[in-house]
Amino acid sequence: MPQDRASIIVFSGELDKCLAAFIIGTGAAASGMQVDMFFTFWGLSALRKKGVTAKGKLFIEKMFGMMLPKGADNLTLSKMNMLGMGTKMMKDVMKKKKVASLPELIDMAIQLGVNLYACEMSMNVMGLKREELIDGLKGIVGVATYLENASKAQITLFI
Amino acid sequence: MPQDRASIIVFSGELDKCLAAFIIGTGAAASGMQVDMFFTFWGLSALRKKGVTAKGKLFIEKMFGMMLPKGADNLTLSKMNMLGMGTKMMKDVMKKKKVASLPELIDMAIQLGVNLYACEMSMNVMGLKREELIDGLKGIVGVATYLENASKAQITLFI
Amino acid sequence: MPQDRASIIVFSGELDKCLAAFIIGTGAAASGMQVDMFFTFWGLSALRKKGVTAKGKLFIEKMFGMMLPKGADNLTLSKMNMLGMGTKMMKDVMKKKKVASLPELIDMAIQLGVNLYACEMSMNVMGLKREELIDGLKGIVGVATYLENASKAQITLFI
Repeated sequence: MPQDRASIIVFSGELDKCLAAFIIGTGAAASGMQVDMFFTFWGLSALRKKGVTAKGKLFIEKMFGMMLPKGADNLTLSKMNMLGMGTKMMKDVMKKKKVASLPELIDMAIQLGVNLYACEMSMNVMGLKREELIDGLKGIVGVATYLENASKAQITLFI
Repeated sequence: MPQDRASIIVFSGELDKCLAAFIIGTGAAASGMQVDMFFTFWGLSALRKKGVTAKGKLFIEKMFGMMLPKGADNLTLSKMNMLGMGTKMMKDVMKKKKVASLPELIDMAIQLGVNLYACEMSMNVMGLKREELIDGLKGIVGVATYLENASKAQITLFI
Repeated sequence: MPQDRASIIVFSGELDKCLAAFIIGTGAAASGMQVDMFFTFWGLSALRKKGVTAKGKLFIEKMFGMMLPKGADNLTLSKMNMLGMGTKMMKDVMKKKKVASLPELIDMAIQLGVNLYACEMSMNVMGLKREELIDGLKGIVGVATYLENASKAQITLFI
């Protein structure tokens, strides 16, 4: 019997949606499924490495770099952000109730062997370079790789 | 031949997205599919029972309770809400054209045997209690239950 | 062996999400998969034909017509739109880097035989008529048709 498999596109760069993606991803991996997460558009924000900016960028690429959240620790809620107050409140209550934070979930995903892929085309459009993303990345791939993996998965989600 | 099955995560608490989720869910159930709907984060708003608030909540839990929409009848559109005017307009036109409202679709889903699940972790984070959610709920479950159901489904959606 | 198949619901009418939907859709079709794209709610905006408005509409239907983006060329980003400046910036950088625009991707999808369906109920609610949508449309269908197609697909997404 082939192993169960899950394929998740992470399009959104918001804290709540990325939390949902990684809770499903790590849960699936922990239960023995093979998990592929494909980060595209705003979702790439979650994979940015803190304080690293590649050199030699075009003006517009610098703009993207400045406007997008700088890594998993800097994402905000899609609702009730309230100038950051709602996001802080959510992080505090999660900590208090011992729910893993997003950076912890990402580490966990890597430990559990979840395959984290960055979308080549989005990186090109936004001018993001490999060294600006976290080390645990499995690779930078195109839509063909996504489709090949997803067509073998029982669970396919776009988040 | 195993029965066809659909698994829908309802993450969003907006009227238009919840309508889409329940139109698909009831449609699938009516055509003989087994349907599981898993409500998480803002999506839990759609399952709140009118006028019921559990006692003994933390300050922050009371805050969540006040800020989240109080049940299916109080959700708003994700676009064109216009301080509620767009939402009212949409509800009026749906009524005029005899399209079922969200509360009617939820009742229909329960009648048709759609399994409505609330996400345990989200309820914990937001401080929601069982008695604050509608009666037709099948259960409060974790991500493991979601994964078990979804891996048997032909249709898996994140809304 | 049955042909691989992908089923995509396009609910969102934002440029970035529609781009993602069509990049996946055209990619899947190019790799030999059968692809069904089902446009509902705000997603119908992407299929509107420029400069065409049906006659005999109700007041409220005219309102929807005026408020929704008028075709694929008029969609805006879900984030960083900045009164249109961000959207223009994104379009410029895509052009510069030779990434296909949304209207080009839609043409490509039609050439590749992707089945584009419009949701009957949404068209009814919004008062949209067939002649207001692009020619390449495969048909106007209900949720039953969506479910029949999706239940045979390996990849099912809600965008």
